[in-house]
Amino acid sequence: MIKQYYMPTRVLMGEDCVKANSSEFLKMGKKALIVTGKHSAKINGALDDVIDVLSSNGQKWALYDKVMTNPTVESTYEGAAFARSENVDFVIAIGGGSPMDAAKTINLLACQDIPMDKLYDGQYSDEILPMILVPTTAGTGSEVTPYAILTNNRLQTKKSIGSPILFPQIAILDAKYMDNLSKEITINTALDALSHSIEGMLSLRANPITDSIALESIRRISLCFESLKSGRLTRAERFELLYASTLAGMVISNTKTTAVHSMGYSLTYFHDIDHGRANGLVLGEFLKYIEKSWPERVNEILSAMGYGTVNEFIILLDELLGDREKLTDEQIEKYVSITANSSNAKNCRVVLSIEELTEIFKNSVNK
Amino acid sequence: MIKQYYMPTRVLMGEDCVKANSSEFLKMGKKALIVTGKHSAKINGALDDVIDVLSSNGQKWALYDKVMTNPTVESTYEGAAFARSENVDFVIAIGGGSPMDAAKTINLLACQDIPMDKLYDGQYSDEILPMILVPTTAGTGSEVTPYAILTNNRLQTKKSIGSPILFPQIAILDAKYMDNLSKEITINTALDALSHSIEGMLSLRANPITDSIALESIRRISLCFESLKSGRLTRAERFELLYASTLAGMVISNTKTTAVHSMGYSLTYFHDIDHGRANGLVLGEFLKYIEKSWPERVNEILSAMGYGTVNEFIILLDELLGDREKLTDEQIEKYVSITANSSNAKNCRVVLSIEELTEIFKNSVNK
Repeated sequence: MIKQYYMPTRVLMGEDCVKANSSEFLKMGKKALIVTGKHSAKINGALDDVIDVLSSNGQKWALYDKVMTNPTVESTYEGAAFARSENVDFVIAIGGGSPMDAAKTINLLACQDIPMDKLYDGQYSDEILPMILVPTTAGTGSEVTPYAILTNNRLQTKKSIGSPILFPQIAILDAKYMDNLSKEITINTALDALSHSIEGMLSLRANPITDSIALESIRRISLCFESLKSGRLTRAERFELLYASTLAGMVISNTKTTAVHSMGYSLTYFHDIDHGRANGLVLGEFLKYIEKSWPERVNEILSAMGYGTVNEFIILLDELLGDREKLTDEQIEKYVSITANSSNAKNCRVVLSIEELTEIFKNSVNK
Repeated sequence: MIKQYYMPTRVLMGEDCVKANSSEFLKMGKKALIVTGKHSAKINGALDDVIDVLSSNGQKWALYDKVMTNPTVESTYEGAAFARSENVDFVIAIGGGSPMDAAKTINLLACQDIPMDKLYDGQYSDEILPMILVPTTAGTGSEVTPYAILTNNRLQTKKSIGSPILFPQIAILDAKYMDNLSKEITINTALDALSHSIEGMLSLRANPITDSIALESIRRISLCFESLKSGRLTRAERFELLYASTLAGMVISNTKTTAVHSMGYSLTYFHDIDHGRANGLVLGEFLKYIEKSWPERVNEILSAMGYGTVNEFIILLDELLGDREKLTDEQIEKYVSITANSSNAKNCRVVLSIEELTEIFKNSVNK
């Protein structure tokens, strides 16, 4: 079977990376659309850094700071209308997965007339504005992926659009924007990145290049397990998690995700559980069931974390996740049905049965 | 310090990868320039596979099979004249580093008027034809780098040209073309790839993303150490070495190389020693001297190989390299002088003194 590795985004990294790369912003055009959520980009200093650079470059900008958490398809059309009205040349996104994914979609919809019922077809022309993405959490990896994950109310789940044109031109990594992230967000985003690398290794599309990147990503996140428990991370550890999440993004750019993400989407859609936490809730039990038919691969993953058994990993997850959410049998039945029909679940080398998915859900919650 | 990671080449990999991707060839244009050395592409089946695909696609081609080992600057101008006369739309290179690097330069010179004394300036426009590279050795990594290394008789060394426009669009990895490589070529090319990953980790431009990729590349090559000693490799091991050499290419695309390559260039230029062997000859002693000021990093490299000391690695190199070449003190003095002035040597986190470089050369040969 032929496999592929492709990740054309330039990654710039280091302390004060935005300001050190003002010339990269200058090359992009005369006027930027800056896409952020409502608050965090203003608080963590990233928006100020970007505006300082644009100002000193003599570039104009329009700020779209209305991105909601888990942005809906509908909301991105509003953002696209704003982008069109502002006649921008390029797009800068600052934030976690929600602003970055919204920015990609807003960019696409500002450049191309795509009716809502065709958005998921992936049949786009090449028209898109260049993008610079500045992640302010270490989880999503969206800064190096060709995906945007949107909440789809018609399908009652989150679902991604994907196209090579959605790869940003530049990703800028500076962990200083993460210094004041809460313990909860730090843990949830780290679990999201960990899940990306683990799922990448279990994907039908996994290949030796993505495996290599995934294993190192897992190792780097594991170095921070103890600090994650306390929520007190040094700047160096923040950088480790940021690099690991970008590496994990490079993995899923090629492998896509598996049933963990699909299960997590239901938990987020119906229970408003944070995306990273939702993945973390099911990840341990999922690995237990994968281990039954692919023990060698699960062992590679565990070894990279310094564990010998899945249960050791589950003990860590219990500590990081705290009290788990409660689900009824009816709810589980519904989410299993959604998961079993998802393309993510079919993307795993081990496709789990309805019974197995049900047991994973049951063992993952109510404890 | 701001670091960068960038590698925009699409890597396609797997058994019969050329034929499985005939549509990728079709997209490239109506007529291809195929660049190869004199013999190997015809013997290992790669040229036949490529021509079969072009034929069935109804595409035309012109074959330039005159690339010499360690191609000179002058020879690439001849190739470029041929390319211009044939009016090709894209370039396919098949071979080891020599055909791939020659093809990149031929492509550049066919598209742009660059006088010989300006070739190393790196001041090129964006004009270049799309390229598909098919490596038939597992060493150079050129299929994913923006470099072409050319023999420069005026400077009496090999010296690389580099530009992002030299990244190929597509690299196609199929280890079946390596089945019949001699033990000697297999060892030399594996040592070249190993040297890329090790030097990448010691480069001033190293970053956590390149380190991650380098460590896994080193691990994968190390898995083949025992088989390299016998020269009998399975197809799976051939694939491991191929993936590892591509990973190593992804590393040096960002980190460049260090004094090892610079020392090796003199050994190749003045003594016609194979490039990979030349690196292998000095690599062990080089690490000994690096260890004195950066023991933690050398220990990371050794651990990835499963070794505890540099001497254990040198014992392996002794076994793989066999009898070593003889150099006089006058020769060593000359090569040390060339190395000390090279940009490669200055690209290392540990810049070695004239005395240290002299000792490395002396301890690496005549034994």
